[in-house]
Formats: sequence, C-alpha cells, structure tokens
Amino acid sequence: MRENTLKSAWGSGRETLGLWLATADPVTVEVLGGLGYDYLCLDVQHGLVDYSSAVPALQAQQRSSSIPIARAPWNEPGIIGKLLDAGVMGVIIPMVNTVAEAEQAVAACRYAPMGSRSYGPTRAAGALGGRYFEDANSQIACIPMIETTTALENLDDIAKVEGIDALYVGPADLAISLGFGPGSDNDDPSFQDALQHVLSACEANGIAPGIHSVPSLVQTRLAQGFRMVTVTSDLQAAGAGAKQALAVARGEGSSDGGSMY
Amino acid sequence: MRENTLKSAWGSGRETLGLWLATADPVTVEVLGGLGYDYLCLDVQHGLVDYSSAVPALQAQQRSSSIPIARAPWNEPGIIGKLLDAGVMGVIIPMVNTVAEAEQAVAACRYAPMGSRSYGPTRAAGALGGRYFEDANSQIACIPMIETTTALENLDDIAKVEGIDALYVGPADLAISLGFGPGSDNDDPSFQDALQHVLSACEANGIAPGIHSVPSLVQTRLAQGFRMVTVTSDLQAAGAGAKQALAVARGEGSSDGGSMY
Amino acid sequence: MRENTLKSAWGSGRETLGLWLATADPVTVEVLGGLGYDYLCLDVQHGLVDYSSAVPALQAQQRSSSIPIARAPWNEPGIIGKLLDAGVMGVIIPMVNTVAEAEQAVAACRYAPMGSRSYGPTRAAGALGGRYFEDANSQIACIPMIETTTALENLDDIAKVEGIDALYVGPADLAISLGFGPGSDNDDPSFQDALQHVLSACEANGIAPGIHSVPSLVQTRLAQGFRMVTVTSDLQAAGAGAKQALAVARGEGSSDGGSMY
Amino acid sequence: MRENTLKSAWGSGRETLGLWLATADPVTVEVLGGLGYDYLCLDVQHGLVDYSSAVPALQAQQRSSSIPIARAPWNEPGIIGKLLDAGVMGVIIPMVNTVAEAEQAVAACRYAPMGSRSYGPTRAAGALGGRYFEDANSQIACIPMIETTTALENLDDIAKVEGIDALYVGPADLAISLGFGPGSDNDDPSFQDALQHVLSACEANGIAPGIHSVPSLVQTRLAQGFRMVTVTSDLQAAGAGAKQALAVARGEGSSDGGSMY
Amino acid sequence: MRENTLKSAWGSGRETLGLWLATADPVTVEVLGGLGYDYLCLDVQHGLVDYSSAVPALQAQQRSSSIPIARAPWNEPGIIGKLLDAGVMGVIIPMVNTVAEAEQAVAACRYAPMGSRSYGPTRAAGALGGRYFEDANSQIACIPMIETTTALENLDDIAKVEGIDALYVGPADLAISLGFGPGSDNDDPSFQDALQHVLSACEANGIAPGIHSVPSLVQTRLAQGFRMVTVTSDLQAAGAGAKQALAVARGEGSSDGGSMY
Amino acid sequence: MRENTLKSAWGSGRETLGLWLATADPVTVEVLGGLGYDYLCLDVQHGLVDYSSAVPALQAQQRSSSIPIARAPWNEPGIIGKLLDAGVMGVIIPMVNTVAEAEQAVAACRYAPMGSRSYGPTRAAGALGGRYFEDANSQIACIPMIETTTALENLDDIAKVEGIDALYVGPADLAISLGFGPGSDNDDPSFQDALQHVLSACEANGIAPGIHSVPSLVQTRLAQGFRMVTVTSDLQAAGAGAKQALAVARGEGSSDGGSMY
Repeated sequence: MRENTLKSAWGSGRETLGLWLATADPVTVEVLGGLGYDYLCLDVQHGLVDYSSAVPALQAQQRSSSIPIARAPWNEPGIIGKLLDAGVMGVIIPMVNTVAEAEQAVAACRYAPMGSRSYGPTRAAGALGGRYFEDANSQIACIPMIETTTALENLDDIAKVEGIDALYVGPADLAISLGFGPGSDNDDPSFQDALQHVLSACEANGIAPGIHSVPSLVQTRLAQGFRMVTVTSDLQAAGAGAKQALAVARGEGSSDGGSMY
Repeated sequence: MRENTLKSAWGSGRETLGLWLATADPVTVEVLGGLGYDYLCLDVQHGLVDYSSAVPALQAQQRSSSIPIARAPWNEPGIIGKLLDAGVMGVIIPMVNTVAEAEQAVAACRYAPMGSRSYGPTRAAGALGGRYFEDANSQIACIPMIETTTALENLDDIAKVEGIDALYVGPADLAISLGFGPGSDNDDPSFQDALQHVLSACEANGIAPGIHSVPSLVQTRLAQGFRMVTVTSDLQAAGAGAKQALAVARGEGSSDGGSMY
Repeated sequence: MRENTLKSAWGSGRETLGLWLATADPVTVEVLGGLGYDYLCLDVQHGLVDYSSAVPALQAQQRSSSIPIARAPWNEPGIIGKLLDAGVMGVIIPMVNTVAEAEQAVAACRYAPMGSRSYGPTRAAGALGGRYFEDANSQIACIPMIETTTALENLDDIAKVEGIDALYVGPADLAISLGFGPGSDNDDPSFQDALQHVLSACEANGIAPGIHSVPSLVQTRLAQGFRMVTVTSDLQAAGAGAKQALAVARGEGSSDGGSMY
Repeated sequence: MRENTLKSAWGSGRETLGLWLATADPVTVEVLGGLGYDYLCLDVQHGLVDYSSAVPALQAQQRSSSIPIARAPWNEPGIIGKLLDAGVMGVIIPMVNTVAEAEQAVAACRYAPMGSRSYGPTRAAGALGGRYFEDANSQIACIPMIETTTALENLDDIAKVEGIDALYVGPADLAISLGFGPGSDNDDPSFQDALQHVLSACEANGIAPGIHSVPSLVQTRLAQGFRMVTVTSDLQAAGAGAKQALAVARGEGSSDGGSMY
Repeated sequence: MRENTLKSAWGSGRETLGLWLATADPVTVEVLGGLGYDYLCLDVQHGLVDYSSAVPALQAQQRSSSIPIARAPWNEPGIIGKLLDAGVMGVIIPMVNTVAEAEQAVAACRYAPMGSRSYGPTRAAGALGGRYFEDANSQIACIPMIETTTALENLDDIAKVEGIDALYVGPADLAISLGFGPGSDNDDPSFQDALQHVLSACEANGIAPGIHSVPSLVQTRLAQGFRMVTVTSDLQAAGAGAKQALAVARGEGSSDGGSMY
Repeated sequence: MRENTLKSAWGSGRETLGLWLATADPVTVEVLGGLGYDYLCLDVQHGLVDYSSAVPALQAQQRSSSIPIARAPWNEPGIIGKLLDAGVMGVIIPMVNTVAEAEQAVAACRYAPMGSRSYGPTRAAGALGGRYFEDANSQIACIPMIETTTALENLDDIAKVEGIDALYVGPADLAISLGFGPGSDNDDPSFQDALQHVLSACEANGIAPGIHSVPSLVQTRLAQGFRMVTVTSDLQAAGAGAKQALAVARGEGSSDGGSMY
C-alpha cells in the first residue's frame, strides 16, 4: 500500500502543509496536485463536495505526491467508510467532543479488531496498491477535530484514545464556542490557551497537532508547534489569484501581491 | 434585454478586461463573478468546458455584473447557436481566416435578415430580460479571432464585414503561424507588425481590437490600443493563488507575489 | 444577510405559499422562481434530489424573490449543515417526534450558543450577503415536521422548544400513523383534531403552522389558519401542465383546466 | 425492431401529437412518458439538452409508448449519428433550405446504399429490439425543417428527396425570415401561404406535414391538415402548471385554467 | 405493485442469483439487466455509487426482469428511505449486530404500523405500479447483514425480528471479525460454523439465507442451502471479460476462460 | 512529452492490441487500464461517450501504460481539437473517403505548418509532460478510417497523405458499403480483397494497418498483417464477463468460457 507520508512526517516531527479542496474541480485538482503541498483535503463538510464529486477529484490526484485526505460531513460511519473505500488516506472528523465520539471516529476508520470499518476498498485497493487490508489500519490517518469548549474539557482523555493520529483545530468553531465571532485567529487568552492545550495534549500522546489556517498565519502556527497546517483552499486561491491578476492588469500598485493574503 | 456593457464600452473607446473560464466550476464562477472583471469568457474551445458545463456556469453568473461570453470550439453554427440560447452575450469564434468565414461567423450570431441564427432563446430570453428578439442582433457581440497568416492577408476585408464587433488576437496560434513557438508575446517584428495591423484595421472600421494576454502584459496591450484584453483564467488563477499561498506559508520570500505572474 | 421574508411574513401573521422541488432541474427552477411563490423547497427527502443536485438548483434561484429552503432527508446534522452552507434559508426536518428530537433539529440549524452548527458557509455567505454569521441564527428558519401520533402526544412541549420557527404537517404520514391510507386530507375527526392541535400549539407559542397541500385544498388550509402552505411540486406541475395541454390540443372539453387539480 | 408508430400513423393519414423536451429531466420524462403523447422530442437545438443529457432522457422513456425522437442542433452528421445510436427513432433537422441540404440530412439518417450513416447502434440495437440494421432505414423518421424563404423557394424539390418522412415547420424562424417577429402563428398572407405550400408539397409527395405549435393552436393546425403537431414542452408545461396551481391556491378565479394556454 | 419475485422465490425455497453493481454505469446496467440474474444490487456502501448515481441506474433497469435492490451505506434511515422512494424493491443493510439494530433496519423499510418509513414514493409509485402503499410493506425485502461475531452471538434473536425477509452474510467482514484476513471463503471451522448458524437460524424462522460470493463458489453455496447468492459485480465482470478477451486475442491458451473465475 | 508507444511499436512493425471504451465509466477505466492493452480508445462516435465524459475517463487512465486515444464522432475539427487538448495521444477519424477528407483529418491533428490545429493543450500539456508543442506533431497519431467503397477507390492516394500514421478498417461499415450486412468479418472476396488492399497500401507507405475486431478474430488479423487491432469493448467485456459468471454460478458446463467469444 502507498506510504502515508503524512504519518511518517508526523512520526519524525516534521511539518506538513495542506491545501483544502472546497470545490474540487477535477482538472483544477490535477494542476494543484503538482504544487508540492503535503496533503490535499476534500472538504465534504463545508466544501461544495459530496461523495459523487469526491471520486473524480481523487482520480485526478493520481499523479500527485500530495496525500489525499478528506473531511467528513459529520462523525457518521457511512460516509467515512465510503470516502476511505474511494481512496482517501486520512479522514478529518468534525465536532468530536467526547471520548465516546473519539472512539466512534476511530472505529469508523479501522478494521477489526481495532474498529468496525466494513471491508470493501473497491477503488482504494487498486489506487493505493497491494496489501491494502494488512496496511490500512496503520497507514490511514484518523484525525478528530477539536473545536468546542466541551472538546477542550475532554481533551486530555480524547488525546489518549488509541488509533488517533492527529487532532485538528477548527479555529472558527472554536472561537464561536468560546463566545467570539468566527475567525482564523483570536487574541483572547481563552483562544490562545486552547491552542496550547491542544499542542500539549498532542505532545503528551505522540500525536500530531493540526490546525486550519490562512497563508499569513502559517509561519506562526508552525512556530507554535503545529505539524499539520492547512494553508488555503482551491476556491480561496482562485479568488485571490484572479483578484491579484486584475490588480496587476490594471496597473494598480506593483505586481507584488502583498494584499493577496 | 440586458445591456451589453462590453459593446457600450467599446463604442466609447473604453478598455475592458476579462477573465477566461477554462474549468468553469459553478461555485468558483460565482465567486469570480464578483471581482469586477468586465467579462467572463467560457472557453468551449481549449477549456475543459462543453455545452453541458456551460449552462450551470452561466447560471452561476446571475449575480455578476461581468458580461457572460463564450469562445466556440470552432466556426460551427450548431454550437454557436446553443451557447447564445443558453445566455451568452458574445461569442469569440476561432480561426476566422477569410471573408467567407467571417460572414459565416456573423450569420451564426444574428437573426435574419442580418444572419441565419435560428430562433429559440430558451434560457437567454428569461435570463437576459424582455425584448430579446428585438435587441439580440444589436446587443450580442460577434468576435472573430485573427490568429493565422492567412487571416492577416485578408484582415482589411474581414474587418469590413458587417456585424463584427471586435477582432480578437490569439497570440499563441499567431506566433505558430508565423513560424515561432506559442507564447503570449513575441519580439519578432512580424508578430509586432501583425498586432499593429489588427489595431489599425479595427480603428479603420470602428470595431474593438482584442487580445489574449497574461497579467504582466495587460498594461502594454492597453497602451498599444487594445480595448478587450483577457487577463488570466480561473485555472491559472487557482494555480497561481495556491502556489503563492504555499510560498507565503513556507516563509519563502516576503508575501509579495512578484513571481506569481 | 438577505432578509428571510418567510419569517417576517409569519411574524406579522401573513400567509406564505410554496412550491416543492422534487426534481429541481436547474433551468426549470429558474423559470419557476419567477412565478411569485413565497418559497421554493428542495425536497431532499422524498424528492429525486440530493446534495449534488441541490447546489445547482440553489444557484438557479439567484434571480428569484422566493426564499430557498430545503427538506432534509432525516434529522441528521451532517446533511442539514451542508444544505445550510449551500445557501438554503430554512430547513424542514422530517419525523420530529419528541422534545429531544426537536432540540436536535434546532441544534443542527443554529450556531453556538443556541446550537451546535459548525461554521463554514462556503457558498451561503456569498450568496446571501454580508454579516452571515451575525444574522444566520435569526434569519434561518428551523421547521420540524409533525407527522406521527407520537409527535402529537408531545406536541405542546415540542412547540415550546426555543429556536423553532414553524411546525410543518406531513398529512400523508400523519394519516398513516393514525391508521389510514396516505392522502392530502382526511375527513376522520382524529385527523382534523390533529390539524387543530398543531394550529393551537403554534398559536400558543408564536410560531407558524405549516402543511403540505395540493392546489385545491390551499384555500381551506389558509382559512383554517395555516400560514405556510405548499401548493404543488415541479414534477406535479409538469405532469399537470402537459396533461392539460394534451387535452386542449385534442379539443377535449374547453381549455378550462378544471380537472387539472 | 420496435415499430415506429409515428410513421405508420402518417402512412394512414392519422394525426400525431408531440411533447417537446427542453430540459429533459429524466424523472420528469418518465412521468410525461405516460400521458399518451404520440412522440417525445428531445430538443438538442434550442433546448437545454446535449448528447450527455439525451442518453438518460432516452433511458427514462423505456416504459413509454410515445416514440422517442430528437431535434439535432444543426444539419451535422456527427451529432445526428450519435442521437440515432442512442436510440431515437426520428430526427428533426433544422434549417434545411436546399435540395443538397435535404439530401445531406437523409444521408445522415440512412445506412448505405440509401445514405452514409455509420454503423454502431450501441444502445439503439438493444433498446429498440432485434434486426436493427435491417429495419432502421425504414423505421427511422427523417424530418427536415422548413423555416426560411429560401426553403420555401426550394420546397417542391426538397419534398421530392427520397428518404424524407415529414417536413416540420418552425413558425418562429419562418416568421422572422418573412420579415416579422417570432411567433407561433401570423395572420399575414405570406405566412399562411407558406403553411399551405408545405401542406400541398407534403400531400403531393406522400409525406407528413408537421408544425411546432402551442396548445390553443393545435386544433387549427389539425384542421389545416398537419399530421405531426407539437403541443408544448416540458419546461412550458411546468411553468404553466405551477402558475395555474398558484392561482388556484390563491383562490384567484375558479380552478379553470383558461388562462393557462 | 410489481411483484417481488425474490420474495416469492424464497417463499417456495427456490434459489436466486444476483449481480452486484459497483459502478452502475446506466448503459452497462441496461445490458446486464437482460442476462437473467434474479436481482441487481446497487452497492451504495462499498461500490462507487451514491444516491445521485442510483437513480439513473434504476431507470436503466426498466426493461429488466431482474429485481432492483440496493445495499445501503449504513443502517441509517435517511438513505434507506431515499433508495426505496427511488424504486428499489429490497435493501441490504450492513453491520446489523443486535436485535435493536435489526428492529431499526426493519423500521426504516416499513410504513406504520410495522415501521416508521416516511411516505413519499415519488419515483417508486410510478415505476413499480399501482397500490404502492398497500403492497410496499409486503413486497419490499428487508435484508440485514450478518458479518461480525457480535451478530453471531445475537443471531437467533435477530432472525426472529418481524419484518426481516433474509439474512445476508458478508464473508469478508465475517472473516475479519473472526480474526482472519478478508476473503470469500475460509476453511476455518469458526467460519464454516458461522455459515451453518446463519442457515439454521434462517430455516428456523422461515427467512432466506443469503451470502456474497464469487462465481466459482456459487454451486457450493447453493448446495449448503443459501437461497440468495451474489455471483459477481459489474466491475469484476468487466475486468474479467476484458482480461479474458486479451488472452484470447494473444492466442494465449485456448479460448477457455477457466482462469477467469 | 510522454512517448507514444503505439507509434514506436508500429515503426518497428510490432503488433498493438486495444480496448474500446463505449461507456467509459471512470472507475472501470481505472481497472481496465491495468490489464496490459496497448491502447484504450474512447469511442466518441458510436460509444455512449461525449466530451464531458471523455475528460474524467482520461483522468482515470493516469496510472495506465495503455496509450489513450479516441475516435471522433465525425471528421470535424472542433471536437478533434477538444479531444487532443484533453489529453488523447491519437485520434481515429471515421468515414475518410477522399484525399481532401484525409488532408482535413491531418490538419485537425497537427499544428502549423503541418496542419491547422489551434494551440491550447490545457489539460494535455500537464498530463502528457513537458515540451508538448514541440513534440505533439510527431507523437500524436492521426488514424483515418477506411470503411466505404469510395475510400477503397481512393485508398492508394489517401495512404500517401503526409501526416497519417495508420489506417483503421471499420469492418461493419465496409461490409454495408459492399452490399452486405454489418459484421466483424465477411467471407466474400470483395471484403477480403479490401482488407488486402488496406494492408498493401499501408505497407507501401510505411504506415500501420488497423482494424476493429472481436477476440476470436484477432489472431487471424495479426496473421494477415494488421498491427493495430481492437479486441473488444468495456461494454462487451462487462456483458461477456457477467454472462459467463452466471453460467459458472449455475454450474452450466465447466468454468470454461469457450462460448464467451
């Protein structure tokens, strides 16, 4: 089975940067797959993507060295299984707030005896190479999201659940849950403390801390210790690129894209 | 019928800048439609777009003030008619090399007695507003491409064909026809002379000179006198945006996007 | 954010009439969006619609003053969140039988602290205008269905659950649950009492009573006090229209469509 | 091979009524296929239909006794062949203005030696039953459109071209070509004379006269002698049905649909 | 309503053989529907099929005498209801491990008072014929899967749950749950005992024993007493057929396909 | 640019075997791409494939060593250009009957000065690797079909047209043109002579003779000297595979597939 280079990177403490696929147009994905991101994540939750659009987007990543992962719409075993069978090598699972929910997330990603995923990797076995059954439990990344105050309360126990590879912070929902508006960052100590809590809980349990970001914040996140940082999305990149191109075309300012991010 | 602001801009000598849609993902188009480009052009020739993907992309432009146009795959009346019926307000027609071909292009875009377009604007009549039949011949833009040495030989006569609103230079094919490799620009005098020829033929006949471009060349093209300049494409913008975001994320250089275009 | 005129109508006791979208062909939706219905509801439960067809149908409603809503396939947070992120302004949630289920329905429709909806209105924020986060909890309509005897038993408590904007009667399932065959109406006192119960529970709690209907019953429903009444569906309208057109064409009877509904 | 009941009806002088499919949603087509129209015509010219949507629409007609036909986007052999291979039993071919164009239309519909259609009825052979090759030339209907003054000038010769089964008047284009605005009918003698010319040319050559219509005109057309009359479209029927349903729901007028057509 | 010949076969102890649809290309399904399989099962769990591809695949089966069924992605009422409304006549429900889960599976497939399926057979009522409501509870097959050791422990009670028509063994998951690798068969006594347990539990309760298989194992399964045996899938058949064709073309061995299965 | 191993094989006289894609389901194509066929040909003429389904099918071939080619629906430059831009490495062009038609076919496949293909390999440049413009004219295969008596009359001159890489016999149309019914082979001397004529004309001009076939005929075709032989199609393979699987399952005969082809 294809090696999950995300997991090997995290195992040795290396940073990984990812691109979000919110629209996942297959030809765009082909092009973006060649840019050198460590992972491409199909956003089946808030993106305009569902199972039917996930499959061609995964086929479009065949030439890419980026690891294909997906965010499930919810902590539901049906769609998690379908995404894995279609060939994703990791699943981000939203709104995991308790140990029970974390265990349910792991169960959906792992074959028995580690979990209760059903066997039938119809596309994955071919797309990811031989010995899929033997290697899937160790190569597939299970990545619960930490994005509520309830999750923070249970964080130390959640991080101990066996079978979790990373915890992924959703800063917008986290900020809302803490009483603020949504955003990629927040100066309030409660928000900053939450990030530190995730970082320390991950370190204590040998799993990777991850977070959703925007380009200008990534260096900060890496300096804080996050090892899985999503940089931008296909949709945001198209908007930013087309906006900057228009500015350049109009001769507004130099061709520097400082305002881009 | 909705006013074709491209044609009114050209009529008063104003510049128009456009965005190419090579993949035309409908939600991406919705976002790009809000950026202020003067036109969005579905590339049904070299883009990954055909009729079935053109319709949702046109529906996605309803909130946009950008004028929806399309490039036909070839000088063929069947597909030109279908694109117009779907609601485009202009058609770029490739490889128009002779007066006869120019007349054929006009005929496909105009109702009798100016042409031979068949009546049935199933979506266009609703999407573009009342009095479609009465206004279509004057509001629809017919835009042949000049991109071969044969076209240059016939250029002065082509530009005189009634019903043409603009001539659009395809620099890559023009360069190839002149014996060079494809590119957005070429220093050779034969290429530069060809551009001047298009500019003067358009001026002599009161039609707009247009050209395909890249962001960094647009100011030059406008200074030369081109009034319809395509800046970049959705696919190129997504690639450029995602590439720059990764550079910013990696802390490589400043957040300036100078290398972006 | 775009004003939800359904909610303002209900707030002042005005009637609202809706059209069901069972097939949701995007161009048909564009046409039907101009007829003056107060809402268009994508039926993701019993209609031939899923998430992948809901998105183009919503894009096709951009020119319409009808409020776009959807019926979820079930009381499941994953798909409810996806429909909201795609731009619907209200969700009808089937088979809400208990207070706990009603609270779950509300939670799926509301951001914290009112609920647990996850933030990421990828299309909705652009399509519905600025300040989405600030206004969504008040502008989005949460509409549980009352359609079983269990729901009737718990009705007075369900109607008190904070965050509900309307209750929507599914007459076919209600009739089945009461021991009859499915239908839009039923003379049995148990069915009529149930309607009165919904009307009074809504009135007592300041929320709008709604019901699925057919054209010929709508005047009765409005007279009874229902304020959200679905008139027919795209599929039924197409069938009725084509049937009547054939009768007119055959010269069978006059051009009156009395048998149409 | 399935019998083309249109051709047998025309052979014995019987009337046939048709429904146009402008959007061709497959489930809507399934429903409309049960109403008793003699033919369902996929409008690949002015409808929102191309080859990719024609195939599922044809599969959706399997239960229907209506004969599946299509209007090609133009007199082009590539798409005519594809539609026939997909299983249509007749092709309406627009803008046939000369004998040469009529012969080209016939050639595209017939195997050698009658024409030059290429063999490969991948779906048609299964969908329409055995002996497809032997029966196709006699069962497939070739139906050129008469819709310009040029066509009228050549009409007597066009009608004599072997292999034509019917001539179909496009009244909107015909009116435009005669110098009027588009419409289903026109009181001007030049228009009425043109209809009579088509009727007499068909009668003289034993082929069926056809015309595009609206419901309220059909009885007139049949009385004039037309034997192939299209009544309305799926899109118009959906609009009319939904409009009338809303009127009934509002209690505006009686439930009579007199204003519907 | 169309008769479910699977259920009548099982009722009289006859064998039924099925074909799995893992990709469900609609034209391929049309062809495969004519081969004489007793059922065609859309695999919405491990297949590359979701609701949006299930509908055209069901439309493509209209000419087939094979009974259309589906495997749901999980024991979730939303998607089970949607598949039934789209016209499947049976649902295989994965990972049913307890009596409560079996009762939930039955509830999703049956109208009240037998279950809690919601009424709205938008396509099914037309596609499967009249009296759908009256006949659905008896004609629809509810088929839980037995594929874990937990299910085996509860098997005798699961088999007694009213409303179940068959139990379907998933040998790959069963083998994994028993501690082996996935496969269609396994010599270990624990696996063989499990099959016997399913057979005896079915016989004791008058329901049909079913199992997923490969061609070479089917005769064995029938001899063991299984009455619902899936032979192969569309994807496996295409691969096997194309592989054997290549071998024949290369003149490798005779034209015998012994190595095919 | 990726090497066209078909052309290098033909250049050294080696045989190549191909698979036809008539439905081109993307996941099926992924599987079939691993079987070792020398080419996979999207049949955009008689297959159920158009441009919109060709693109995902080409993306699905990224892992395959089979060369991706397509058959155009007709000798039309618009669709030929679109298929090339999407990434096919060869085009089979039907119904080439004269030198002029052969020259038109070549022109559509070659950039100036060899032809008049328009530049814009949006997907092809990325999918097939660097230096696309420089290498395309030599790596792309242009393959006219010989399938009528007119083509046979002009065959010696057609074969001399510069830029042709192979001639491909369509035996069904050839047989029809010769006065027989369609078939893969025909004993009549006129048919056999035609094959010999194609073989000798190819040999005389150093181009490859090709023919459409069925598995059982391939060895004969190779012995005759054909170097490009299509073995079967995805649709035929699926049907044959599923038919044989059912026979094996029923215990009818041995597991030998002698009747399969």
